[in-house]
Amino acid sequence: MKTPLRLAAVLALSAALPCLADEGMWLFSAPPRARLEKAYGFNPSDAWLQHVMRSSVRFNSGGSGSFVSADGLVITNNHVGLDALQKMSNESTNYVRDGFYAATQAQEVKCLDLELNMLESTEDVTARVNAAVPAGADANTAFLARRNVIAEIEKESHDKTGLRSDVITLYQGGAYHLYRYKRYTDVRLVFSPEQQAAFFGGDPDNFEYPRYDVDICIFRVYENGKPLHPDDYLKWSAEGPRDGELVFVSGNPGRTERLFTGAQTAFLRDTSAPFIQSVLKRRDVLLTSWSARSDENARRAKEDLFGIRNSRKFYDGLLSGLQDPAIIDAKDEAETSLKDKAAPLAGGADTLEAYRRIAAAEGTYARVYARYRLLESGLGFNSELYDIARTLMRAGDERPKANGDRLPEFAEQKKDSLELALFSEKPIYDDLETLDLADSLTDLTERLGYGDETVRTIMAGKSPRERAYELVHGTHVRDVALRHRLYDGGAAAVSAAKDPMIELARSVDQEARALRRTAEDASEVIQESQAVIGRARFAVLGTSTYPDATFTLRLAYGTVKGYEQDGEHIGSITHFDGLYRRSDEHHGREPFDLPQKWQAARGRVNMATPMDFVFTADIVGGNSGSPTINRDGEFVGIVFDGDIQSLTMDIAYSDAQSRAVSTSSNAIIEALRKVYGVGALADELTSGHR
Amino acid sequence: MKTPLRLAAVLALSAALPCLADEGMWLFSAPPRARLEKAYGFNPSDAWLQHVMRSSVRFNSGGSGSFVSADGLVITNNHVGLDALQKMSNESTNYVRDGFYAATQAQEVKCLDLELNMLESTEDVTARVNAAVPAGADANTAFLARRNVIAEIEKESHDKTGLRSDVITLYQGGAYHLYRYKRYTDVRLVFSPEQQAAFFGGDPDNFEYPRYDVDICIFRVYENGKPLHPDDYLKWSAEGPRDGELVFVSGNPGRTERLFTGAQTAFLRDTSAPFIQSVLKRRDVLLTSWSARSDENARRAKEDLFGIRNSRKFYDGLLSGLQDPAIIDAKDEAETSLKDKAAPLAGGADTLEAYRRIAAAEGTYARVYARYRLLESGLGFNSELYDIARTLMRAGDERPKANGDRLPEFAEQKKDSLELALFSEKPIYDDLETLDLADSLTDLTERLGYGDETVRTIMAGKSPRERAYELVHGTHVRDVALRHRLYDGGAAAVSAAKDPMIELARSVDQEARALRRTAEDASEVIQESQAVIGRARFAVLGTSTYPDATFTLRLAYGTVKGYEQDGEHIGSITHFDGLYRRSDEHHGREPFDLPQKWQAARGRVNMATPMDFVFTADIVGGNSGSPTINRDGEFVGIVFDGDIQSLTMDIAYSDAQSRAVSTSSNAIIEALRKVYGVGALADELTSGHR
Repeated sequence: MKTPLRLAAVLALSAALPCLADEGMWLFSAPPRARLEKAYGFNPSDAWLQHVMRSSVRFNSGGSGSFVSADGLVITNNHVGLDALQKMSNESTNYVRDGFYAATQAQEVKCLDLELNMLESTEDVTARVNAAVPAGADANTAFLARRNVIAEIEKESHDKTGLRSDVITLYQGGAYHLYRYKRYTDVRLVFSPEQQAAFFGGDPDNFEYPRYDVDICIFRVYENGKPLHPDDYLKWSAEGPRDGELVFVSGNPGRTERLFTGAQTAFLRDTSAPFIQSVLKRRDVLLTSWSARSDENARRAKEDLFGIRNSRKFYDGLLSGLQDPAIIDAKDEAETSLKDKAAPLAGGADTLEAYRRIAAAEGTYARVYARYRLLESGLGFNSELYDIARTLMRAGDERPKANGDRLPEFAEQKKDSLELALFSEKPIYDDLETLDLADSLTDLTERLGYGDETVRTIMAGKSPRERAYELVHGTHVRDVALRHRLYDGGAAAVSAAKDPMIELARSVDQEARALRRTAEDASEVIQESQAVIGRARFAVLGTSTYPDATFTLRLAYGTVKGYEQDGEHIGSITHFDGLYRRSDEHHGREPFDLPQKWQAARGRVNMATPMDFVFTADIVGGNSGSPTINRDGEFVGIVFDGDIQSLTMDIAYSDAQSRAVSTSSNAIIEALRKVYGVGALADELTSGHR
Repeated sequence: MKTPLRLAAVLALSAALPCLADEGMWLFSAPPRARLEKAYGFNPSDAWLQHVMRSSVRFNSGGSGSFVSADGLVITNNHVGLDALQKMSNESTNYVRDGFYAATQAQEVKCLDLELNMLESTEDVTARVNAAVPAGADANTAFLARRNVIAEIEKESHDKTGLRSDVITLYQGGAYHLYRYKRYTDVRLVFSPEQQAAFFGGDPDNFEYPRYDVDICIFRVYENGKPLHPDDYLKWSAEGPRDGELVFVSGNPGRTERLFTGAQTAFLRDTSAPFIQSVLKRRDVLLTSWSARSDENARRAKEDLFGIRNSRKFYDGLLSGLQDPAIIDAKDEAETSLKDKAAPLAGGADTLEAYRRIAAAEGTYARVYARYRLLESGLGFNSELYDIARTLMRAGDERPKANGDRLPEFAEQKKDSLELALFSEKPIYDDLETLDLADSLTDLTERLGYGDETVRTIMAGKSPRERAYELVHGTHVRDVALRHRLYDGGAAAVSAAKDPMIELARSVDQEARALRRTAEDASEVIQESQAVIGRARFAVLGTSTYPDATFTLRLAYGTVKGYEQDGEHIGSITHFDGLYRRSDEHHGREPFDLPQKWQAARGRVNMATPMDFVFTADIVGGNSGSPTINRDGEFVGIVFDGDIQSLTMDIAYSDAQSRAVSTSSNAIIEALRKVYGVGALADELTSGHR
């Protein structure tokens, strides 16, 4: 499970049902004390909460992690670290396939553009944000006013504290919180297993259980050229997870939309999810086919293919829920029930009007959706070089504007992250670029039509393949020094470069921006209306709820627990012997092949060591790499997946079969000592220091 | 390359260009004598033509083949025989993977439902068909009148001769020929190599060159329980193919539409090809993913996956040509030029009107296209059991009607073929059926919409997965005895069965038939109009042209010849050493792995033996398995593919890089003797008898 492409929306029946069982992704500032106390007799102290919060980190590449030593070790999933591993690999060194271990500090390899954020503190700024919106303002005025004040708050905070400062919209606009993060950009690779050990079973076993993966990647954070000594880090559990015990997940669930109205659900089911899914399936076929032509192709495409297959399976699961009348009917009933209860209350008419406004806005969005995704979100131009070219072109136009007037990704407070990505030295492969761009231009032409005016402009009289070839081989933006010059030189320098890829981006910019405005206006109406419905929901259901996920830090909890499936009991914890058995069943063939070190260790490892385990916590994409913690605040495992049933749980929460999946702390230590022979690293984890 | 899913249309610029170079798929009744004489100094005798014609056979599973011994041996491609191999395999015996050899006549395995047709004679019946259409009849009346007289001619001929009798529409309705075939239904497997030898390089090397495949499958035809002794069979060439020599292809090109108007090209580019391609990519992902879960899954899905990937690559090639302005602009110019030249001639106004009528009909067809393909062509119900259920349901309704009023597939003269397919004992796998049906119901729901009335009827309140499971496990039509009872019992028995799959088919039948009528009406208008344009084209360009392909026997010709690509010369003939080299480059990994027998033969085979070769003949899907013949009428190879450039050649003929690809006769003998140690079979081929 992986965040980046998992944009999808996630629904639940929360509007009708009180929060039950182990549901919820709770704010650290408002933990579910009463529920924990009642169900588990556990009441976390403020110190416990702050310690866990500050031991947790967020990866800008899309995932979560945690500090696990006094000397700056951070652990996350292999698939969260993959982006960094891929960028530091080349034709001769393949960290993804072969894994890595730095025996000495000097051998630790710096990542090219990885950024970690540690949440230092949070502050409620709802009153200030709302005060900035003039009474009776229309949607657009309100949106701009809010964007301005948010930029102002973020800038003030950043200037004052030097910390990354983001204002987060919670409860669909019911609340705004200022989150201050410590940023770490000197992150070095210490250890990675072979991807085959981290992702044993590959796509076929992804989102399935039982599993046998050691899905980890270990980095060390540096500050001023020296290992960081964080104030907080998680102690390693000596025992590991136990069946039936209470565990917590501290991580950054990416996005949920549990307040979706019927109109939003219909848009997701009929418009956005099928569109994205068909793009994913197309790319899956393209890269699978190209990868088969040679080993080097396969290496170059591996990370993209990994993400695509992961997302594609997710959308299959999501759509299967969205097309299930049982779920849709229940959701409709919940909506009707909420409307009935809200109507007689103060503002009842506004609530009903909010539903209508959402339906109208979704209709508008649906009409521009494909064009918007292809031309503005870049699905029609699947190319790293295009992304760079467009960023340079837009940076020239946006940076001279007042901070609050810019497109949000060019705001002053996002500058560091933007530049880190823009000036990345990560390798770009012309053959893969041409392949991806040609196929996405073909898709663009199919969807918008060969005769479409914009398509004709884009294609410039060439076939998609010819056009992609000439753009990829004609552009100079692969040169990082040139990127610096154009970025520093601004719009004039960018224009003067007459770079074909930049000019392509410019040729669609006017229409792309117009589409974005239409989409954002619709989105703004939806957000405003959701906030109205959100307030009505609070009025009806009380305040004991959690906000939708926003890729910010949350606390989830649950029980280590198996489940029943097709009349069979699936146990909660797998063990090393299961790994070897499953590989044997498939004759050791890919993706059930074992790396050489694992084959060699067969006689050495303790077959009864716990490997992976499942539990009932409420997680989604973005939680990948989150620590799983016991009530003593100790690290007992690391979340790396949800089972296949959890994909439908995203629409309707259930703890019947839906489970989060973690690699156990025991498996990590056993593998480090017996398989990889890196006892020093195992010692650092178990003792908490070098 | 394979016919069944290769429905696609194929275009050329023939309207503007005289037939050049080695273009053309010629009727045996009108061979290109003048062109052959001029280019090659060769004038085939009538005896030569009849001998080649009667040595050729058509496979009803979609492909071509030829008699190659006096004792009834027929050779075709492994991928044409695949359907039969798959049907005779089961969990313990895998003919596809392991290959097969019958050392004795008793060991030869009878195919379940394979039918071969040998073209015995042809007769021009144009005058009789045209006479049956009342003067001034509208399109529908003309269509029905023509359907009636065709059914009458076919029935008469069948009653008189006992031969399968098909009236073939040629030159877009410019001519109608009655083809009489000998049918052979007792066809037994003699030899097949491992699929890995036949399809070495798999999907990555498909449509590529150089190639190293021995893509063959050898059957023996029986009649009255004894080996057939055909009057005609091809003698085996002692020498094999030579670079630069003239060769012929005698086979059944599936379908071309080289007379497409701009409106038809636009429909193909913007509507039908993208639709089919997205269905193919979806199924590719589904089956690739499912196959990876277990070896048995992979075996069950193998044949379908093979066909899907083949077609998917074809559509990628086709769309790349359709989106190429150079090709489209040239085609537009050709159309304008033909219109300009035809306008002043007699009937010029009708010709221009024909273009307009085609555009209008394509518009009508485009509006119903997705619904028609999903509901009537069955893309929304991807299930063998559904196909059987619908055939039973419709047979009950259609068979009591007059022969000429029936849907064509239920006409009396198609009865034998229909029953062979309907009562096939081929295995049906519930898990694969459920998987396929659930995914196609999901696709149906996405495309037509969750709220669509017909979709709601189909889904019956269930999710696609639940509905597919209940249908597959609830139907009884997998029982062949039951199929016989319902078929014999007619509509009343079919209704009384209350079988859920049959009832599903019935629930959409009214709408499906209406869609079919709309599509057929549009198609009829297009055909009529094409005939008008076709006549104008003859008036302008003369009669020295060939008709579009119709999956009937044609003669093509060309030169054994390499080509230039990216500055490199690709030689015309590969050799055994190249096979071993390519496998080594990929470390012997799938799909570049060599079967055990080929590994063992490495020291034994003559590495200089010709393996595959390319030549300039004009072929398309359906030609798979066609014999490649030298001017002495000897077998020098067997067509199994076209190179990637030939996919664009389908739109604009060229002999620059487009090539047909054959396995050489030499490779077949070397493999039989040295790799498989089956000298007796090699002797039968080279001597022509047992």
